Amino acid sequence: MNKRVILKQRPDGIPKKEDFEVRIDALQLPLKQGEILVKVEWISADPAQLVWISGVKSYMPPVRIGDTVRAFGVGLIVNSHAAGFKVGTYVSGLLGWQEYCKVHVSKVEKIPMNVNPTLFLGIFGMTGFTSYIAIKVLGKIKKKQVVVVSTAAGAVGSVAVQIAKAEGCKVIGITGTASKIQWLKDIGISDVINYKTENVASSLKTLCPEGIDLYLDNVGGEMLDAVLLNAKKGARMILCGAIQSYGQKKAQPLYLYPLVISKSLKMKGFIVTDYQNKFDEGFRYLESLYKQGNLKYKEDVVDGLENAHTALQKLARGQNDGKMLIKVLHEAPKL
Amino acid sequence: MNKRVILKQRPDGIPKKEDFEVRIDALQLPLKQGEILVKVEWISADPAQLVWISGVKSYMPPVRIGDTVRAFGVGLIVNSHAAGFKVGTYVSGLLGWQEYCKVHVSKVEKIPMNVNPTLFLGIFGMTGFTSYIAIKVLGKIKKKQVVVVSTAAGAVGSVAVQIAKAEGCKVIGITGTASKIQWLKDIGISDVINYKTENVASSLKTLCPEGIDLYLDNVGGEMLDAVLLNAKKGARMILCGAIQSYGQKKAQPLYLYPLVISKSLKMKGFIVTDYQNKFDEGFRYLESLYKQGNLKYKEDVVDGLENAHTALQKLARGQNDGKMLIKVLHEAPKL
Repeated sequence: MNKRVILKQRPDGIPKKEDFEVRIDALQLPLKQGEILVKVEWISADPAQLVWISGVKSYMPPVRIGDTVRAFGVGLIVNSHAAGFKVGTYVSGLLGWQEYCKVHVSKVEKIPMNVNPTLFLGIFGMTGFTSYIAIKVLGKIKKKQVVVVSTAAGAVGSVAVQIAKAEGCKVIGITGTASKIQWLKDIGISDVINYKTENVASSLKTLCPEGIDLYLDNVGGEMLDAVLLNAKKGARMILCGAIQSYGQKKAQPLYLYPLVISKSLKMKGFIVTDYQNKFDEGFRYLESLYKQGNLKYKEDVVDGLENAHTALQKLARGQNDGKMLIKVLHEAPKL
Repeated sequence: MNKRVILKQRPDGIPKKEDFEVRIDALQLPLKQGEILVKVEWISADPAQLVWISGVKSYMPPVRIGDTVRAFGVGLIVNSHAAGFKVGTYVSGLLGWQEYCKVHVSKVEKIPMNVNPTLFLGIFGMTGFTSYIAIKVLGKIKKKQVVVVSTAAGAVGSVAVQIAKAEGCKVIGITGTASKIQWLKDIGISDVINYKTENVASSLKTLCPEGIDLYLDNVGGEMLDAVLLNAKKGARMILCGAIQSYGQKKAQPLYLYPLVISKSLKMKGFIVTDYQNKFDEGFRYLESLYKQGNLKYKEDVVDGLENAHTALQKLARGQNDGKMLIKVLHEAPKL
């Protein structure tokens, strides 16, 4: 049997318990050629999920009502009908909110056994790759440039600020609580703006009077406006998320986009899955940073599929403390 | 003596007559080494001027209160203290709203004598170069791509649509009056949207169901939103002007910028004067298009410095019919 969580109705704003339903179904076995059965151990909660369940057309189709909630996860192969994918190996992929996932091996990636598998949902997964693509591939940062990152203490942001710091940039993080500011200081980012208590535009002006070279935006709206106001001529704005607008009827408006003209700015949005050809170099880069002790991370864990929705609530409210994960609790098999 | 028009006060919205004042001063002669005296014949009215006089900090400092209004112009050298710049030669440059301009030759460009000099304020001037940079250099269009241009019947827009058409693209122009639609049809653009009578987003959907590859934006606000909604994945939005917001206290808001992420779009703003190294290739390209009969233009002329402000009013209201010019009327010298 397989316990899974389906989308019962589209959330109105921040997802609620009632938007989801736990189902217990029989697994459609046996496996076909090329398929594996994965015991899902960890599920990733990402801002993009808020878009997927909202019904808004995006780079992936919305999760349909009645379907298992789409999510990245890692798990152990417990049955295999595919050469090279042995039982007892860890894999990652879009495994969904469920205990077991039957999947074709073309949809998953093998994970090395000598590293904590949750890292492949965080710093060595889509999260880390997103930061790498944004800062190194699209951001093309150079030593001593001024880099600003919003949701800097978040899963993507905290990797991004550490990359920029390792590359010799002046890094400014934007975040919203005292504990997040402390965590950023712990990982070596001393210039931090608390957007809840400070005027972001004027704090940026003070911290970087010469202007900003690169902004990694996960927020949009007035925070993007504040950065546009302080952007250097020719600066790059890498748009990676717009968490302020997810689950809202209408995005937070942007007013200062005419500065894109007068300051010759470049604004580039991207979806990490379009850069799969960069994942190998990204992994090597991130792994080397990690081994040097320059890539720290934090995890915030919710226990059990029944509570998976609370992970999305914490993300949407900015209440998560590190990479948001759901630990799947498998009941002991009945004897 | 020199008749000139100064900025008396910053316009509140669309410029009024009272925002300017006509002055008659003595010219500071004689010329220094490297200087010329230019009899200004034609002055260009451009949307950027609305920014320059508004006091908003831009790529050029605002025109100061009491200063001659800044504008591109063409005129005849009537006195010269510079080698290679003979009396009787036409030059173009930032000559200003005045009858005579004393200027160092490093600030002007010579104009060939065999072509109507007003062309160097239009299709062979900043206007034409802006279109060339937007469509060819930054837009990187390829045959059969879908190109959308706003203020398509304007000075920049009408060159842009003709370039895109000559390059074999499907071109959609957005404009606001029946006579502008007719003019676009006259120059070979049959797919035109009237933004005053149509819903731009749904008309775009009908005209290009596969989506837009390149948008040249001169408007911003809801028109940019309508295009974002219909952009193809990976499309380029070249931001060139935001006429909807010039002279306004606050720009028209943009709501759909999160599509920049989900559609992997690139938004690039630019200032034509940053691309001076492309002007020669731009001129050769535009001249060749013109000689083939594929670059038509229209001029809308206001007579006399006293009426120069009406040229800006027409521009700001979208009432100009072609490239907006001011003809400087020099009084006959008193005998």
